Amino acid sequence: MTELEVYNLLSGMRIVEGASFIAAPLCGLTFVQLGADVIRFDPIGGGPDFGRWPLSPSGTSFYWEGLNKGKRSIAIDLARPEGRELAVALITAAGESGGNFVTNYPADGFLAHERLVARRADLITVRVTGSSDGRNAVDYTVNCATGYPYLTGPQDAAGPVNHVMPAWDVTTGLTAAVSLLVADRERRRTGKGCEIRVPLSDVAFAMLGNLGHVAEVQTSGHDRPRYGNAVFGTFGRDFSTADGRRVMLVAVTRRQWTALVDALGLKKDVARLEQNLGADFAGDEGARFTHRTALFALIDARVGTLTMAELAKRFDNTAVCWGEYRTVLGALRNDARLSEANPLFASVRHASGDTYLTPGFPGSVMSEERRAPPAAPPLGAHTDEVLADVLKLSAAEIGTLHDAGMVASA
Amino acid sequence: MTELEVYNLLSGMRIVEGASFIAAPLCGLTFVQLGADVIRFDPIGGGPDFGRWPLSPSGTSFYWEGLNKGKRSIAIDLARPEGRELAVALITAAGESGGNFVTNYPADGFLAHERLVARRADLITVRVTGSSDGRNAVDYTVNCATGYPYLTGPQDAAGPVNHVMPAWDVTTGLTAAVSLLVADRERRRTGKGCEIRVPLSDVAFAMLGNLGHVAEVQTSGHDRPRYGNAVFGTFGRDFSTADGRRVMLVAVTRRQWTALVDALGLKKDVARLEQNLGADFAGDEGARFTHRTALFALIDARVGTLTMAELAKRFDNTAVCWGEYRTVLGALRNDARLSEANPLFASVRHASGDTYLTPGFPGSVMSEERRAPPAAPPLGAHTDEVLADVLKLSAAEIGTLHDAGMVASA
Repeated sequence: MTELEVYNLLSGMRIVEGASFIAAPLCGLTFVQLGADVIRFDPIGGGPDFGRWPLSPSGTSFYWEGLNKGKRSIAIDLARPEGRELAVALITAAGESGGNFVTNYPADGFLAHERLVARRADLITVRVTGSSDGRNAVDYTVNCATGYPYLTGPQDAAGPVNHVMPAWDVTTGLTAAVSLLVADRERRRTGKGCEIRVPLSDVAFAMLGNLGHVAEVQTSGHDRPRYGNAVFGTFGRDFSTADGRRVMLVAVTRRQWTALVDALGLKKDVARLEQNLGADFAGDEGARFTHRTALFALIDARVGTLTMAELAKRFDNTAVCWGEYRTVLGALRNDARLSEANPLFASVRHASGDTYLTPGFPGSVMSEERRAPPAAPPLGAHTDEVLADVLKLSAAEIGTLHDAGMVASA
Repeated sequence: MTELEVYNLLSGMRIVEGASFIAAPLCGLTFVQLGADVIRFDPIGGGPDFGRWPLSPSGTSFYWEGLNKGKRSIAIDLARPEGRELAVALITAAGESGGNFVTNYPADGFLAHERLVARRADLITVRVTGSSDGRNAVDYTVNCATGYPYLTGPQDAAGPVNHVMPAWDVTTGLTAAVSLLVADRERRRTGKGCEIRVPLSDVAFAMLGNLGHVAEVQTSGHDRPRYGNAVFGTFGRDFSTADGRRVMLVAVTRRQWTALVDALGLKKDVARLEQNLGADFAGDEGARFTHRTALFALIDARVGTLTMAELAKRFDNTAVCWGEYRTVLGALRNDARLSEANPLFASVRHASGDTYLTPGFPGSVMSEERRAPPAAPPLGAHTDEVLADVLKLSAAEIGTLHDAGMVASA
């Protein structure tokens, strides 16, 4: 499996994934990128995420390819008891390397942890669920309950504004990965497995608490208004340049603020403002927010006289915290961090037939070589291999399963 | 330390955190919630995040409290060599439980991994950084480069729309936690530590790749337009109810779609639409997006005749995937998942003097009791305890440090 690894840290660890969409598959992907053997089983023809947009010109799901890179794929008829038995056998297969299951299948079905542990006592199940109250949910039906859509978007927006980046899915997938690693650590100490359930809704509401939103509202008794692109409680907003481009400027520290004021040549103007308002913008982060109307006007006027190139020249090699707004295509064309110049990425040919920039693990292990990120498998590409390797089935037994339509190969 | 734990899985693991803002402190918080001893050191008077908004009525940062719950806090004068030596001694202290460092300090300063390993060879350093090219960056100055602000927001929005939920910070913090756990696992096998760097920008661009955005744009040569609150490639959008409330409806599977059409009594209307358009909405997820204008009109009209209570009655105990839009205050008042009815939360009195709903780890370990989530410490609350426990300093030595103003207690 070495050609499928990005880092080699988790070699010898096998994870079986029975899942779809983003959260649980992202958990599996994280393990692939750190060197584990991740086997994803799917119904023959693919799970509910197999055709998820965006699609390649040939109709393959780029979404599926992106989230399933480097996994071994086995396709099983999960509608029949014999197929379900194969999935259960795979999850609970003997051997020290296995015993790890990541899923978003229902907790009360044939993949219930209680049933699985009857077959393998030390199994770890990490189960991504929707709502903590048992209802189904996806990122968007959780996000609407958190209040964020009424905090996001232009100040004059009439209704809620959904995020497009599936933040709760991603956060849940990584929380699932943390959960599995912690359960594995504990099993090494005690020999015992466990089930950890990670509901999307608990991930979202917990983060609302961690970031102070719950305390703020519970204490004050009222909601924070929308602030558009202004960053709450500090200095930050987007500004238009003389050549019609857009820059995000942020100053969360004294150093960033001082550097910004210097780089824009606004020292005197800001000092005058501070005197008039009785404010200390360098020393008091909150004051940079309280007086944002005046500060935004000052900086708007100055940034509007400079081109993006002129701004970049002023900001380079200073402590100014800034970034240019780009579309995805703009980033792909102009941002070296989204290119093969960044070791995170390699150009990889995928099952869709398309070759595109493909990321590995976003952390860099400084003492290890990065290998090229793997392609996603065609569905069922490893069906026979996994049946032989993990379930120790003979060629004849595998042939019988194919004849019965119980499994399928790519 | 048992009263500070939410789960007990990582007891015996000590993590030293030298960090501020969200990402690295969230990594530390995750370890606290799983039972580790997390010691956060700060400059005397607090780091750059110590006064971050939102603030309590008494001026304490709810943001800081939320992200530092259950950590032990030591305050050190990091501007002087002797203070820096204390921080280094803490990070590299002997003992099997330690040797884990989470930070966002610069890689080339006094907390450089190469310097630290000279003192403790098996040290693991997980370093959250800004931009992979070495520039500083925060969530907002990374997000602007990803293209998401041009995909987010109302279709007629003039400029970019920033997310308010700091998605990249949170994702980076959890990626840091995964990195530390994997490095710890490897150290148990080989005895060797390592440094893993997690740049915010790599986390963001990698996710853009994982979710298919990069492939889509690289292959098509053009950017996806903004779709407002419509979910790309499937059925999903917000709708207004007869009583002026807002509901998010999503159907990413055949089952969810069929349930939605049934619950709204739209079977005949949808069948007629399918016939007219030559579409199969149940079988083809993409068709539900392609023909969204017609579908949204149909569902808009129906949802607009029903109150939220009537909708809830129709949707309860079905496979419909839905959620009501709420503000944070609305969620706090009306959503049982954000209340003490949910074992994730407990009402905790914090250093600010305020008592509010406080979350634990968002994953539920099914075989373990949850303990109440801990409060955040006052800054420097554990200065003397940590100097004695970890650095084995005598009371006299600790007194000398206080006299020199090298450390401070709460």
